[in-house]
Amino acid sequence: MLDTAVDEARAGLAEGGIPIGAALYGPDGEVLGRGRNRRVQDGDPSLHAETSAFRDAGRRRGYARTTMVTTLSPCWYCSGLVRQFGIGRVVIGEARTFHGGHEWLAAHGVEIVLLDDPTCVRMMTDFIESNPVLWHEDIGE
Amino acid sequence: MLDTAVDEARAGLAEGGIPIGAALYGPDGEVLGRGRNRRVQDGDPSLHAETSAFRDAGRRRGYARTTMVTTLSPCWYCSGLVRQFGIGRVVIGEARTFHGGHEWLAAHGVEIVLLDDPTCVRMMTDFIESNPVLWHEDIGE
Repeated sequence: MLDTAVDEARAGLAEGGIPIGAALYGPDGEVLGRGRNRRVQDGDPSLHAETSAFRDAGRRRGYARTTMVTTLSPCWYCSGLVRQFGIGRVVIGEARTFHGGHEWLAAHGVEIVLLDDPTCVRMMTDFIESNPVLWHEDIGE
Repeated sequence: MLDTAVDEARAGLAEGGIPIGAALYGPDGEVLGRGRNRRVQDGDPSLHAETSAFRDAGRRRGYARTTMVTTLSPCWYCSGLVRQFGIGRVVIGEARTFHGGHEWLAAHGVEIVLLDDPTCVRMMTDFIESNPVLWHEDIGE
């Protein structure tokens, strides 16, 4: 399931953007929506990877049986999205380069799968080293 | 400051949308961005009033001296936005018809001003009574 999110992150990097990708999966493993951080590409600070994938999935009733897969631990904004809409599970590529709200989500009943994937770690480590100002803008620091 | 958010909510209602509006103000009281819930109008579940106003304000560095004004208590998604980007103050029209994450934000150092504005209460009460299914879709219930 992580492959789609990694593909989105790589596509974002190729566009000059921040390499974080995500995909929302349905109960049968089908991709409902996919997306990537679009701060640079669209000048849009509201489109983090997770909100981009959520948006791409369109209007729905009920997210309990869906899974949000993201290359990076979801920030408070994206964690709030997961909690408000009752997304049942979050699969996270890594939480080494950024530690968001995934423990808060787990405490509120969301199933969290933290993979510690080396590809995801490397991609964000390289990006943050090369683009610290842009990265800090993206997380409001 | 609430007037701009109420105007956005009314414009949304006139479009057949969910009547929640918001505006992001800068330190000198200038409007940086404004917006309204666009679930119905754009078929976009990611654009709540607050995220719409945040998006409209474009890319920025630092939100500590900004104020998010919203007609309704911010849901977890929009509360997460406020926390992640360090928006310093949230002015809320009312929290009677929906109780979101504003106490959580206060506990994390965000200044919260809760107005209990009768116009905002009436607008959402009427809307929810007439459109319960749409309203519950918008908050993921």
